[in-house]
Amino acid sequence: MAYGLLKGKRGIISGALNESSIAWKIAQRAHEEGATFTLTNAPIAMRMGEIRQLAEQTGAEIIPADATSVDDITNLFTKSQEVLGGKVDFVLHSIGMSPNIRKGKAYTDLNYEWLKQTLDISAVSFHKMLQTAYKLDAINEWGSVVALTYMAAQRTFPFYTDMADAKAMLESIARSFGYRYGKSHKVRINTVSQSPTQTTAGGGIGGFDKFFDFADKTAPLGNATADQCADYVITLFSDLTRMVTMQNLFHDGGFSMTGISEEVMEALTKK
Amino acid sequence: MAYGLLKGKRGIISGALNESSIAWKIAQRAHEEGATFTLTNAPIAMRMGEIRQLAEQTGAEIIPADATSVDDITNLFTKSQEVLGGKVDFVLHSIGMSPNIRKGKAYTDLNYEWLKQTLDISAVSFHKMLQTAYKLDAINEWGSVVALTYMAAQRTFPFYTDMADAKAMLESIARSFGYRYGKSHKVRINTVSQSPTQTTAGGGIGGFDKFFDFADKTAPLGNATADQCADYVITLFSDLTRMVTMQNLFHDGGFSMTGISEEVMEALTKK
Amino acid sequence: MAYGLLKGKRGIISGALNESSIAWKIAQRAHEEGATFTLTNAPIAMRMGEIRQLAEQTGAEIIPADATSVDDITNLFTKSQEVLGGKVDFVLHSIGMSPNIRKGKAYTDLNYEWLKQTLDISAVSFHKMLQTAYKLDAINEWGSVVALTYMAAQRTFPFYTDMADAKAMLESIARSFGYRYGKSHKVRINTVSQSPTQTTAGGGIGGFDKFFDFADKTAPLGNATADQCADYVITLFSDLTRMVTMQNLFHDGGFSMTGISEEVMEALTKK
Amino acid sequence: MAYGLLKGKRGIISGALNESSIAWKIAQRAHEEGATFTLTNAPIAMRMGEIRQLAEQTGAEIIPADATSVDDITNLFTKSQEVLGGKVDFVLHSIGMSPNIRKGKAYTDLNYEWLKQTLDISAVSFHKMLQTAYKLDAINEWGSVVALTYMAAQRTFPFYTDMADAKAMLESIARSFGYRYGKSHKVRINTVSQSPTQTTAGGGIGGFDKFFDFADKTAPLGNATADQCADYVITLFSDLTRMVTMQNLFHDGGFSMTGISEEVMEALTKK
Repeated sequence: MAYGLLKGKRGIISGALNESSIAWKIAQRAHEEGATFTLTNAPIAMRMGEIRQLAEQTGAEIIPADATSVDDITNLFTKSQEVLGGKVDFVLHSIGMSPNIRKGKAYTDLNYEWLKQTLDISAVSFHKMLQTAYKLDAINEWGSVVALTYMAAQRTFPFYTDMADAKAMLESIARSFGYRYGKSHKVRINTVSQSPTQTTAGGGIGGFDKFFDFADKTAPLGNATADQCADYVITLFSDLTRMVTMQNLFHDGGFSMTGISEEVMEALTKK
Repeated sequence: MAYGLLKGKRGIISGALNESSIAWKIAQRAHEEGATFTLTNAPIAMRMGEIRQLAEQTGAEIIPADATSVDDITNLFTKSQEVLGGKVDFVLHSIGMSPNIRKGKAYTDLNYEWLKQTLDISAVSFHKMLQTAYKLDAINEWGSVVALTYMAAQRTFPFYTDMADAKAMLESIARSFGYRYGKSHKVRINTVSQSPTQTTAGGGIGGFDKFFDFADKTAPLGNATADQCADYVITLFSDLTRMVTMQNLFHDGGFSMTGISEEVMEALTKK
Repeated sequence: MAYGLLKGKRGIISGALNESSIAWKIAQRAHEEGATFTLTNAPIAMRMGEIRQLAEQTGAEIIPADATSVDDITNLFTKSQEVLGGKVDFVLHSIGMSPNIRKGKAYTDLNYEWLKQTLDISAVSFHKMLQTAYKLDAINEWGSVVALTYMAAQRTFPFYTDMADAKAMLESIARSFGYRYGKSHKVRINTVSQSPTQTTAGGGIGGFDKFFDFADKTAPLGNATADQCADYVITLFSDLTRMVTMQNLFHDGGFSMTGISEEVMEALTKK
Repeated sequence: MAYGLLKGKRGIISGALNESSIAWKIAQRAHEEGATFTLTNAPIAMRMGEIRQLAEQTGAEIIPADATSVDDITNLFTKSQEVLGGKVDFVLHSIGMSPNIRKGKAYTDLNYEWLKQTLDISAVSFHKMLQTAYKLDAINEWGSVVALTYMAAQRTFPFYTDMADAKAMLESIARSFGYRYGKSHKVRINTVSQSPTQTTAGGGIGGFDKFFDFADKTAPLGNATADQCADYVITLFSDLTRMVTMQNLFHDGGFSMTGISEEVMEALTKK
């Protein structure tokens, strides 16, 4: 169902790799709600991805950008404004990768070069997007920026290793930049802390399936899906949430506020 | 601007006293978005209020109810379902009053009978609404309940006295009942922690104006208005936020995440 | 091992029912560390209790007090000062009881008279102790007040029902009164959020054993014992923690900051 | 006053630059409480520092170490064990520096090479210390690690810029590593979030004095001093706090839990 919530709005959406991506769903929903936008992803990710299909569906232009390169991001914002015909109203940051996780390094045995990459790709990239937009004055007043994050920033999940620290930093950047961008341009910046989601990114994490079940059993509403996350992010891009800023917003079926569920207690007893 | 976000939805809205009330604005916006609902308030508050005007504007029936009376609340939910033609989809709790604040009792000199009333009216009433709805099975699957709260539940604001403790309990009830109602009926329950707002209720608090200015200077987007709060609550009643539950959501222009602002530092220096 | 941390200090310790009580252990440790204190409990609890044995061990006088009675609490503080020879330096609040839990009422079917008792005994009693002490000026400058609480105030644990809401209020009272008492008399007020503990009180809660195991498997250091809690509370009564106030302090082996542990994931898989 | 709380314990203390440093005070108090330890600092910082004077006072050996160098840290832990005659029981991380702050770069105009340095020095260094200790098995069971942090990790303070994000990451590392080190060796890891303090490091931040006053007026007990912080950290190094781990502990006179104080409201009104 569509409501026209983003009618006339322009945006930039990063991180749509394939149709299981949350960003992919957000792009589809943003399109349904009347927005026009550009899509971006790392050149290397795009080669593997099916992003062109999404671009066609949504009438979006693809602008490749390495999220660690200020030059690429500058090009992304400059080109996006040209293509879209003006400043943007919303930006989605859905970028994260940990070489340490990919290569199975334990948190007590991190490779520090890889940790730098984790931080650069997953957290500093958010600052670079914001600073670039800020310098170019590329976001309209009352624009909305959302970054996707995960609750490992608050509590330890063993399989999340150095990505937990990157997400903590990402959420801090949302607050730190949200203060400045709010004061100067009325731009709001929030993070959405989503349930574990069956995406390509999620699938790369060891023990993910077991944990997915635990979270689903714990959350009174079960795990939130990528589609539901897209719905939620649409509200944050809309004009109805203009005064929400610098927040980390849990979209997780209640997982974050549940100490233990009856289902988990039963499951632990049966064994 | 209206989007049809609540088309076909039925609800109950408490606490609309006059047109400065947040609940009043929510009723107006819910009407614009296509909802039908009943209005309720304490019989004593209604005598003073202009609620009939709102009822006419929005085609709502008024069902008086003392929020501390389970009988009245039972009547409220039973009659609302009759009037609206089915179970409800959303409920707004906007009820709070502290005799200790009204009568100028310091927090270190509370009258304990009055504290009981503060708790009964401002916090236990929320549990009574939820338990009554639960027993009557009066809320549809994926229904949404919102209670308005204030950040004094997290940090101390001297003028807020025993209402701070009541709000802490209110937010806990949202979590506690949110867990149960989520499991059993997919009903979500959240609290919205709103900026200080120039309402009749807010005006009753000593030093409110000074504090309003401080909050406005601190929040990077300034204080959120009652109108903006109404917009936000609409998104929480809509189908787009189904997986958000048991959360306390700050709607405050960023106040909650700002340690100090440059404006406040300047103001403190000039003196 | 004793260090003389409370040498010369006077205090009041509530809630020592029998030797499995946390308060009992705190009394023993306070005695070892050089403090003198009075013991208090509800008259009804004392009849069942072995508190006289503790009183002999620690040279403490017992002053019965119903924690819901301002008169009794006034007598407690007045007598304690007489017995101990001056104002007190520390106070322990370890008082909580829910008739709804005792009688097996579900959270969605609370008896509201009993809820009032839960709040009165478990939360308002803390305010009464503080307000009484404040009015009598019964606590020395830099005195320390600690109340025991549980993490159900932050997240939902199904078996904890209305006690969760009472603990949320208790923690709010610590902040609200901590602000005032800090300003006026340099008295600090904190809550300690302890692991599930094998006490008489804990044992009354259904499913406690299963949950105890889950918490023990989740916390990287395992559940904290009553003895360890006593050690920790001693540091909070000592002069070494003078600037810690209005805080809720987790003493739980890391449970609160752990999303899931490997042990729990394994246990869930094996079944 | 000394209690013998650290009798027989061995430790490593970083960050003592001069006698206004918090680390300096902690070293003095640790010495008074019976500990032996090594002191460390960056070679460049030590050339400017008066650390030799502290070393003499406390009988400590100085082992220079660049906190960004795994080799230096390996040497630090290896040598410390030799000098002290065994594994260590406590470690203090008090290391932080932002070239962006030093050189007056705004948060919206960060130099990203300098940001990398900020993160490397202020946050990653903590992981390097922990991982090195872990690999060398250099910390005794029930050992205690403390890192100093600041509340800018939770809320935005404009003058703190990229250090806020580094501190958020630092606190996350305490949780992430605290989980692993707790499970494997019963080592606990916490951060202490201290009031603004008149140190050489604090003095480098623009507008610090104004902010110091604001914080002092807000906190009901006023700002905590470096001496008081030392007292508090001693309790965290002692055996009395063994089950506190993965926590961020505010040592701030109540600042963190105060929304606004009467003094600040008055000051804002007078102007």
